[in-house]
Amino acid sequence: MAATILCIGTELTRGEIVNTNASWIAEKLTELGFEICEIATVDDDPARIIAAIERLAGISNVIIGTGGLGPTSDDLTTYSVARFLGVPLVRHDPSIEAIRRRFEALGRTMSPSNGKQADFPEGADVLPNPIGTAPGFAVTAGAARAFFLPGVPKEMKRMFEEQVVPQIAKLAPRLTHQVRLKTFGLPESVVGERVAGIEDEFPGVMLGFRAHFPEIEVKVRARASSQPEARTLADRAAAEVRKRLGDVVYGEGDDSLAEVVGRLLRQRGYRLGVAESCTGGLVGHMLTKQAASEYFVGGVIAYANSVKSGVLGVSEDMLRGHGAVSGEVAAAMAEGARRALDVDIAVSITGIAGPTGGTSEKPVGLVYWAVAHPGGTIVRERIFNGERGMIQKIAAYAALALVREVCLTRG
Amino acid sequence: MAATILCIGTELTRGEIVNTNASWIAEKLTELGFEICEIATVDDDPARIIAAIERLAGISNVIIGTGGLGPTSDDLTTYSVARFLGVPLVRHDPSIEAIRRRFEALGRTMSPSNGKQADFPEGADVLPNPIGTAPGFAVTAGAARAFFLPGVPKEMKRMFEEQVVPQIAKLAPRLTHQVRLKTFGLPESVVGERVAGIEDEFPGVMLGFRAHFPEIEVKVRARASSQPEARTLADRAAAEVRKRLGDVVYGEGDDSLAEVVGRLLRQRGYRLGVAESCTGGLVGHMLTKQAASEYFVGGVIAYANSVKSGVLGVSEDMLRGHGAVSGEVAAAMAEGARRALDVDIAVSITGIAGPTGGTSEKPVGLVYWAVAHPGGTIVRERIFNGERGMIQKIAAYAALALVREVCLTRG
Repeated sequence: MAATILCIGTELTRGEIVNTNASWIAEKLTELGFEICEIATVDDDPARIIAAIERLAGISNVIIGTGGLGPTSDDLTTYSVARFLGVPLVRHDPSIEAIRRRFEALGRTMSPSNGKQADFPEGADVLPNPIGTAPGFAVTAGAARAFFLPGVPKEMKRMFEEQVVPQIAKLAPRLTHQVRLKTFGLPESVVGERVAGIEDEFPGVMLGFRAHFPEIEVKVRARASSQPEARTLADRAAAEVRKRLGDVVYGEGDDSLAEVVGRLLRQRGYRLGVAESCTGGLVGHMLTKQAASEYFVGGVIAYANSVKSGVLGVSEDMLRGHGAVSGEVAAAMAEGARRALDVDIAVSITGIAGPTGGTSEKPVGLVYWAVAHPGGTIVRERIFNGERGMIQKIAAYAALALVREVCLTRG
Repeated sequence: MAATILCIGTELTRGEIVNTNASWIAEKLTELGFEICEIATVDDDPARIIAAIERLAGISNVIIGTGGLGPTSDDLTTYSVARFLGVPLVRHDPSIEAIRRRFEALGRTMSPSNGKQADFPEGADVLPNPIGTAPGFAVTAGAARAFFLPGVPKEMKRMFEEQVVPQIAKLAPRLTHQVRLKTFGLPESVVGERVAGIEDEFPGVMLGFRAHFPEIEVKVRARASSQPEARTLADRAAAEVRKRLGDVVYGEGDDSLAEVVGRLLRQRGYRLGVAESCTGGLVGHMLTKQAASEYFVGGVIAYANSVKSGVLGVSEDMLRGHGAVSGEVAAAMAEGARRALDVDIAVSITGIAGPTGGTSEKPVGLVYWAVAHPGGTIVRERIFNGERGMIQKIAAYAALALVREVCLTRG
């Protein structure tokens, strides 16, 4: 079964945003068993939108369109689809009601321009948007079923999973299964070397790697003569990947490192606190992306030295003698946070995220992190590469990985 | 001048990698003054590559192709272009020499398959690759000049800048100018209504809107008979947009709200601290994405009530009486942070980010935020919509916007 993707928006053709929607949809369609023969991206221009739909309808059975469903005058997808089909736009009352309720829940009045988002080509199936104002819709275009979804990634993904997948899954032959293993701690080339040969050992298995800084995802895809066989094959090969990579594999599928750490803390009944200098709150933010009150107590963002000493009790002598970026201070921050926050485990980070502030002795990228736990304090040190945001991110991951290590070691 | 982009590779159509090349090239072409009418992505299939070139040659003057120039059998771009042109492949001796030298420099022997990378369609202009094995080439396709570059971003970018830009820059008339205004505080529909009519008032101006939750960017694009005129026109229209939106416009271009707040704090010599409950460190993270030590002191992540009372000094009576999510506690958190961190201004957030924890009286999305400053304490309250991550993000923005308001008010 052939599928195509149509991304609509001048912000895409002008290069103002990276088209992550296209790769996300392409990956999902591939998993479902579709072959994607083209991804087309056009600007908010009705003639070009119409020409693209016409062309894609001629080469595919499923078209997934995104973007151009907003309330403003430059959002022209719905209008273009109606013109392509030669049908009028018809207002969809349930949608206008849903949009009005959304605004009321926000304590606002719906503006007249939002009414436009409830207009659809006559005969279209409306796809409700549970988390935004722009509903999507589906129409038949030539031999293809065409789905149009909002461009906002979060809304698009949810609507694709809940409303599009059930309609198209039966069209594709599912003879494949994929296991996604999440890793942190080794560069992509080393991950690749460690798992070399697995494809030969398990015929029908293909390994893929995706670097999503600072993680490497290993995709184990299996193809067999039935879905259950493909699943068994993928699971067996994934077990071999896990064996070769050990603790570097921290989770599977949509797991995040913070979630995995949270589960370990909860299982062990540990309460966690953080003390962050150069990461400025990033570890706390990662931990609280999901509900975390069962194990996360809070933290101290000790960006200035006055907070390291005033709130965490790091001695001024130590700050002067070793410098704020030192293993001694990292340990003292973690121990101070353990006391100040009254927690079982505290993790600290201090480093030079740059772009300035480095010296030949302590270069940009130098980071110390520590975990203070009931059995003692562990300190780690690394010089990370990259610009400020990358150094902060990998440091935050390293700190969480050390908490994971402590949890695993202490059983 | 119309340009198109053709990205070739099954790793793209299968969604294994995000197509950052396309947005990078699109942005560069836009800066040069080209209008990009389509970005096409096809898999490594000669028939589809040929069909795409044929089509793009009919609608653009410049085609930038990337990918499919590697040494393996699935790299078919050169072969496809030769077939499209109806010419044979010819080996290019200087290229084979360059590839051999590259391998020697790495202490390796060139493999026979690399010879393929020195084959080009007869008549093509070869574009040497200074940092990789795959050279590119340029051909004339219909009315278009088509450039084919490697897919490796680093190689593609260097070759585009050094070898493609000098050839195409003279083709594009730079008759446009764009001003990007960043806004926070109004929904897209209201922003659209407030600026309605500006396009009529300033002929040659087009407004575009981009929702990047929770911000709305307003793009003011002007086209005139010369670049300076376009710039003047865009600036005049942008001034009108600013007048209509007032303080909702917080910055321009690549400004982030945290950077703008940082600049205001630095100008006024204020030192800032944060006290975050439901946002868990996000405000601190936003403030420290850029070097911030001139004005950001640190913060307290008061996720559990024990930290609100223990570190920030919020009284347990108040926590019991009003609840942790209340205006009283938000104020006490900000005032406590002002004392504990010894700062001029402290901003606090407490709320129910969900997905659980809401009641009919205090629903998920209810957030209080406060700023304590030398002249007093300001508290705000809202019920935000959306899932956990959205509530956290908009609450963090609202808190930073209140710091901005206090800075602007206090001059």
